[in-house]
Amino acid sequence: MRLNNVEIEETFAEAFSMKCARVLITALNKRWVKVAAAEATGFGTSIIGCPSEAGIEKYLDPEETPDGRFGAYIQIYHGKTEKLEEQILDRIGQCVLTAPTTAVFNGLPDAEKQSNIGFKLKFFGDGFDEKKEIGGRTVYSVPMMEGDFIIEENIGIVDGVAGGNFFIMAKDQMSALNAAEVAVDVISDVEGCITPFPGGIVASGSKVGSNKYKFLKASTNEKFCPTLKDKVKDSQVPDGINGIYEIVINGMNVDSIKEAMRKGITAATKVPGVVKISAGNYGGKLGKYKIDLKDLF
Amino acid sequence: MRLNNVEIEETFAEAFSMKCARVLITALNKRWVKVAAAEATGFGTSIIGCPSEAGIEKYLDPEETPDGRFGAYIQIYHGKTEKLEEQILDRIGQCVLTAPTTAVFNGLPDAEKQSNIGFKLKFFGDGFDEKKEIGGRTVYSVPMMEGDFIIEENIGIVDGVAGGNFFIMAKDQMSALNAAEVAVDVISDVEGCITPFPGGIVASGSKVGSNKYKFLKASTNEKFCPTLKDKVKDSQVPDGINGIYEIVINGMNVDSIKEAMRKGITAATKVPGVVKISAGNYGGKLGKYKIDLKDLF
Amino acid sequence: MRLNNVEIEETFAEAFSMKCARVLITALNKRWVKVAAAEATGFGTSIIGCPSEAGIEKYLDPEETPDGRFGAYIQIYHGKTEKLEEQILDRIGQCVLTAPTTAVFNGLPDAEKQSNIGFKLKFFGDGFDEKKEIGGRTVYSVPMMEGDFIIEENIGIVDGVAGGNFFIMAKDQMSALNAAEVAVDVISDVEGCITPFPGGIVASGSKVGSNKYKFLKASTNEKFCPTLKDKVKDSQVPDGINGIYEIVINGMNVDSIKEAMRKGITAATKVPGVVKISAGNYGGKLGKYKIDLKDLF
Amino acid sequence: MRLNNVEIEETFAEAFSMKCARVLITALNKRWVKVAAAEATGFGTSIIGCPSEAGIEKYLDPEETPDGRFGAYIQIYHGKTEKLEEQILDRIGQCVLTAPTTAVFNGLPDAEKQSNIGFKLKFFGDGFDEKKEIGGRTVYSVPMMEGDFIIEENIGIVDGVAGGNFFIMAKDQMSALNAAEVAVDVISDVEGCITPFPGGIVASGSKVGSNKYKFLKASTNEKFCPTLKDKVKDSQVPDGINGIYEIVINGMNVDSIKEAMRKGITAATKVPGVVKISAGNYGGKLGKYKIDLKDLF
Repeated sequence: MRLNNVEIEETFAEAFSMKCARVLITALNKRWVKVAAAEATGFGTSIIGCPSEAGIEKYLDPEETPDGRFGAYIQIYHGKTEKLEEQILDRIGQCVLTAPTTAVFNGLPDAEKQSNIGFKLKFFGDGFDEKKEIGGRTVYSVPMMEGDFIIEENIGIVDGVAGGNFFIMAKDQMSALNAAEVAVDVISDVEGCITPFPGGIVASGSKVGSNKYKFLKASTNEKFCPTLKDKVKDSQVPDGINGIYEIVINGMNVDSIKEAMRKGITAATKVPGVVKISAGNYGGKLGKYKIDLKDLF
Repeated sequence: MRLNNVEIEETFAEAFSMKCARVLITALNKRWVKVAAAEATGFGTSIIGCPSEAGIEKYLDPEETPDGRFGAYIQIYHGKTEKLEEQILDRIGQCVLTAPTTAVFNGLPDAEKQSNIGFKLKFFGDGFDEKKEIGGRTVYSVPMMEGDFIIEENIGIVDGVAGGNFFIMAKDQMSALNAAEVAVDVISDVEGCITPFPGGIVASGSKVGSNKYKFLKASTNEKFCPTLKDKVKDSQVPDGINGIYEIVINGMNVDSIKEAMRKGITAATKVPGVVKISAGNYGGKLGKYKIDLKDLF
Repeated sequence: MRLNNVEIEETFAEAFSMKCARVLITALNKRWVKVAAAEATGFGTSIIGCPSEAGIEKYLDPEETPDGRFGAYIQIYHGKTEKLEEQILDRIGQCVLTAPTTAVFNGLPDAEKQSNIGFKLKFFGDGFDEKKEIGGRTVYSVPMMEGDFIIEENIGIVDGVAGGNFFIMAKDQMSALNAAEVAVDVISDVEGCITPFPGGIVASGSKVGSNKYKFLKASTNEKFCPTLKDKVKDSQVPDGINGIYEIVINGMNVDSIKEAMRKGITAATKVPGVVKISAGNYGGKLGKYKIDLKDLF
Repeated sequence: MRLNNVEIEETFAEAFSMKCARVLITALNKRWVKVAAAEATGFGTSIIGCPSEAGIEKYLDPEETPDGRFGAYIQIYHGKTEKLEEQILDRIGQCVLTAPTTAVFNGLPDAEKQSNIGFKLKFFGDGFDEKKEIGGRTVYSVPMMEGDFIIEENIGIVDGVAGGNFFIMAKDQMSALNAAEVAVDVISDVEGCITPFPGGIVASGSKVGSNKYKFLKASTNEKFCPTLKDKVKDSQVPDGINGIYEIVINGMNVDSIKEAMRKGITAATKVPGVVKISAGNYGGKLGKYKIDLKDLF
């Protein structure tokens, strides 16, 4: 199949189950929403070496938030609910409560599983906190040096999906990079999902484990390395391809990942120099979800 | 003492010893340096709840870096060397190696203590890595999907200083916030130090422990909370003050922190609405370093 | 009337008729859309001293543009159609055609008045241009050093409205400024209008003419200057107000200006330190449009 | 000659004389300096269709400015001193005086030619202005709605140089664009010069006049258009080149332009996909200055 003159490989992306929390951060203006959200979701690319996976889902206009200020949804992922709850507590407590002018609301008020993060964080007020209601939500108001910090009692957690992905292959590294940037820009407006890697892009697509070192959880995907094309057997780097980037997408559900893949791939194929789109999988053996590229269009 | 018509309180900031690693990240352009550095130093405000403290020290021009590209120094802090080494490995491996077009060099090549992070990370290449020299430095070249990733063999670690600080007190929250922003902007050009909190600012200056809850490591500094002025004994919020922000500074040495405090305070006192500058300490009982505000000028 | 505890003065904004052109710019990514749009609308705050008034209306997602790339609407205003056409030609020809990866489409394809700017600009191709169709629109493809530049044949012009406005009065300058920034951020998403001043904000609200100098077209609005409160008769600066900013809004129609005023004022009243909202008028003698603040809510 | 494995053509850039004014803008913080400077220098790419050429030279730290705040030098160019003075008056009066928190100082206090722009702009104060001294400079303080605006009495003008340039030729458009961005980033720190085009880059390098249309002042440089390689005689597009960008540099003197060219070309040659660097000239017949590429290194 071809899209905008770019080959879409007949393959599928393989994705996994992970627990997902969604937090709504508001602040004085867009800039401070962004600063707090970036700090809270930093060091959160892959569970292989980060304490959790995390990212900014989307920005919200004042008319979409409980306190009528600018906001953003962030998402935090972990395999285990308990560990995820620790991560929410630490990331919100250290990176949002501490940030100028922020407030924190539940991003999944209708989820079955609710974690009382706000209740736990209000103890920071050392007894001076007050229970209130804002926009129909139960919140705590915690006195601080800047003024009062507002945090909702609960944060919802759902069964999410991690590891949705596609590969962008281009004539050269710069074309691949620009296409990857455009794909991430487009995905940033899709509701329900995040691209947890730096700037949304993975430069170092990996395989599970290692051929040579038993102690490694993951290592370079040598069959997709342009500079190894002539050094490895069965290289999957087509002739004329000199740069490949992977976009990894986590989502609250598989539909949001599909929508992100569809929009991201479409945008990438419009960038000059892009030759082929592929995706990463493990033969369907590891992940719960298989997303066929051709089914997206 | 008064500076630009603002009162500088006769007090001191109390700071602590922490181990400090400094990493030099380069990339295609300023934007990608920033993206990688932000991801690698995220979730790194305070060791109380973050796996380490971290921040961007300063940006470098191409003529200042080993590979002639734009760069930045980031710093990572932990109380224990071993834990710090784990953090460098994870933050670089997950957030810089994965980021488009980056390379990693030693930010402290002359430090006595050198940690072989680069040697460890090259295993990601699954045997396809190569040892090279760039700008007189021993590096590994690791094949990846985007091309080759360069990382220097060692990263240096020194005895650093954490918790340098000052308070900005203003007539209202917005004046305090704008002054804090200006202070952080000025400090961002000071060599050797970082402001690890979100956007460099602490909205929630805290005290050690809690008056009410034994299980808390830190709680709100109620004597500096404007909205508690009439509710607590011995409030230290002067009349007419409605917003206070703290700037926390970590540095490779105490001199860089002093320089940051001097420049940051000077800039803050020029912002309309700022009334007083103070600093946080524990009576000199906890920290190794005491920095008198009046000695800065 | 009060909104979020802030006084809304019983007054009206007075606005004027101006011719308005709307241009749709697309580019490789959001960043280049922004760069081209900013250059093309710069030096365009007020017709008093600028060759036209101009601003960025709103950004568009790839699914909203004729070529499936990111885009933005910009608007250009002048009192006379002929002069406006010169301005479109110069601003597009010098600031968008010259910008990397851009294309230009008609932002008002259904307007009665159409100006053949694209036809005129294609001569830059020195005979090598080609007529094509993209997304149902007649365009010219002009060979350039970067590749080919696409521009639609016509740009539409309508009867627009200039000078919609409101004043934000706060306890101090920093609160007023932060409120003005938030108001502009909110207005930036409103369809059909622009805020042509720097960052969307006017620091120097003016009156028509001058009391003292006959040669001046406009001079400081002394009755609204906080530092002249005790020096002029009939000062309209309320007690306790130390900073005032004006937001000026131009739009393709009066309804988009009203929507912008409603959203901007609402957001501004949520910023700490804001005391009162007012608006500027000339007693209803000069402008075609009167917008009562109380009618907005 | 080759630099970082990229061919540097044996040719020269041809540059012209223009009058140059340099204005120092300060503001509350870096962000507002940037906003005011961008508005004041917008619609200022080329004198062919813009009222003047203009750009941001460099940003200044608080310790480098007369009022101890962040600042920037902007430059404005015109062939005639009289027209340049009108442009300074209009660009400062409409785009800087109107911008929040700004002040304006003379960027060339030692120039022989001084234009009393500040004296003229103070009339906006309608008689309420006051003469003062700040940092040893004679300024006027003009009451406005936000507070008081400070402007220095004079702005200096010197004989400047316009049209310094080089071409970046790459395998494809995206590589050329990324190299051009890096070059502009590097040049942005060079003292004394500006890159007046959008984002500093020219996508549409032109020749003087036209082969086909007598009424055109400039038209596409068809010999450097990749898509016309097989359609024009004597194409100067080498085989394998699919994207070319031009960087145009104006400066207060020819040395700053040379420094910018040296640094910009060096940085560009490090970007993957760049094949050749060239420059634009008119056989040496039109411009006063000839800058040989090989002499830069």
